[in-house]
Amino acid sequence: MNEATTISTEARRDFLNRPAEADLSAAYAFGGGTIERRAEGRTEESVAAALGSRDARVLIFRGDQAALNGGSAYFTRAQALAAGADARGIILLGYENDAPVLAATIPLEPAEVTGITLRDIRGVAIEGLVPGSELGAIALGRSLTNWHQRHGFCANCGAATRITNGGFRRDCPNCGAQHFPRTDPVAIMLAVRGDQCVLGRSPRFPAAFFSCLAGFVEPGETIEAAVRRETNEEAGITIGRVRYFASQPWPFPSSLMIGCHAEALTTDIVRDEAELSDCRWFSRAEVKTMIARTHGDGLFLPPPFAIAHQLIKAWAEYE
Amino acid sequence: MNEATTISTEARRDFLNRPAEADLSAAYAFGGGTIERRAEGRTEESVAAALGSRDARVLIFRGDQAALNGGSAYFTRAQALAAGADARGIILLGYENDAPVLAATIPLEPAEVTGITLRDIRGVAIEGLVPGSELGAIALGRSLTNWHQRHGFCANCGAATRITNGGFRRDCPNCGAQHFPRTDPVAIMLAVRGDQCVLGRSPRFPAAFFSCLAGFVEPGETIEAAVRRETNEEAGITIGRVRYFASQPWPFPSSLMIGCHAEALTTDIVRDEAELSDCRWFSRAEVKTMIARTHGDGLFLPPPFAIAHQLIKAWAEYE
Repeated sequence: MNEATTISTEARRDFLNRPAEADLSAAYAFGGGTIERRAEGRTEESVAAALGSRDARVLIFRGDQAALNGGSAYFTRAQALAAGADARGIILLGYENDAPVLAATIPLEPAEVTGITLRDIRGVAIEGLVPGSELGAIALGRSLTNWHQRHGFCANCGAATRITNGGFRRDCPNCGAQHFPRTDPVAIMLAVRGDQCVLGRSPRFPAAFFSCLAGFVEPGETIEAAVRRETNEEAGITIGRVRYFASQPWPFPSSLMIGCHAEALTTDIVRDEAELSDCRWFSRAEVKTMIARTHGDGLFLPPPFAIAHQLIKAWAEYE
Repeated sequence: MNEATTISTEARRDFLNRPAEADLSAAYAFGGGTIERRAEGRTEESVAAALGSRDARVLIFRGDQAALNGGSAYFTRAQALAAGADARGIILLGYENDAPVLAATIPLEPAEVTGITLRDIRGVAIEGLVPGSELGAIALGRSLTNWHQRHGFCANCGAATRITNGGFRRDCPNCGAQHFPRTDPVAIMLAVRGDQCVLGRSPRFPAAFFSCLAGFVEPGETIEAAVRRETNEEAGITIGRVRYFASQPWPFPSSLMIGCHAEALTTDIVRDEAELSDCRWFSRAEVKTMIARTHGDGLFLPPPFAIAHQLIKAWAEYE
């Protein structure tokens, strides 16, 4: 038994003894959305009715892009088919005000589709090009359409699979295996100590851009263990307490970002040079200038719609 | 913007303003373990050295069973091969005290293997047949070996894939796709209201056995949204606040249980009859007799090693 396995009664009691909280997860782009999934009601009949409904609102995807229809991402079924969507690949995301919300995919070629404006999904979120309620549907639709594009065959036997449950399952006609869309949990954390926090930059990031450390939760691992392992592997820092903050679906293509604040017990940074091109301590004052985009050297953070921004901001504003 | 999207400064500040907490997740079976994954160091060279090491400790799996070696689940590499393990399928889980920890799989037939005691993994955890530190390794090994057994083919093109990264990846020689083990996040929650909580039973459960409601987090969904949706779909109850409690790897085969307490805003239960054979409110007093296994009608809960037990117990003991 290590120290962490000894749970005091105080710690057990603490969870219900805190002040009321808003749902932080619902406040960020991709985390909100008013779509009603009706997951238990995905029968063959209800799916067929939804896919054929005249009231359906249809999202149109091409790779990492979503089509825009003025200030919305919703089209009619007829518009989606006219844009080149394959009717057999249309899936049912859920319902809004009882109207089905569908997702269609158009081919990567040709690059230009007459009458359709396509925008990178990150840009749609950053620039707020659609109502916040539609971003949740876009996240769901993007994850699912990507999954179908990359999972046409049975991992168990290699045969071609077919879409079922309105797009929430693929079945293998050969071996009978059922395949469900994946959602990959990722631990994303801000290690803090007193007035300082740890930020890093991947070689893939734009110059001057810093963010939280993050990594996939591995099989057989708790969220807290993933926070400790990733922070230690990437920055050489030992973590004590871990506190869950909020979660955010991250549809690139199918991550669930699990945001945590983490208590750094050590200060020396040993950077993983393959993963990070820079990693260092930042003071609250410096972070505040990065949030305000007034940093003297132009350093900046992820935009407000990303949970990394909110994790950093929540800490920076707490003093 | 719905109500939940308005975050007060108080709520933002709250996260760092709580008393010190133990790591609840590390305290439960499968959540602990002292294995050092060295995920960033899984190179071809280090993996080959580990797989061939004379100091290696080897877990042996057959389906949902682990082999026991007295009071431990560790064997030598020679013992694993003698038991029928395929050397090419042995994978590297990590290290303990610098000794590699490996996982081997033996075929389902023959049913009896001379000199090897096989036990259902749930039974190993419930009865505490191995040190707590080994249970984390068993969870990891069971998830990974199951994944390899069911993912021998490329979901993108249908070709046979091959094991890489010591077992943490499979590569497709045909289309070049890389496949990573899946970890499926599951929301498991205890809905509470005053002195009462909601428990249900699946038709698959033993008679008189009640537990928390639970369901997979879907693509494009936050943890909190999954708690609300599942509780509403299965029990017809509307949920207000959601509070993260702890997480637990659940290797049957690859779930990450994310435990939450949830505030019930309504009391009428509308049970999903396909998912649940019973679902009702229980008082703290009744739950306490279920924990103590002194319930008049013999009703009982999951065993202490399951996060469901701990979620229920933490609430029952808080008053």
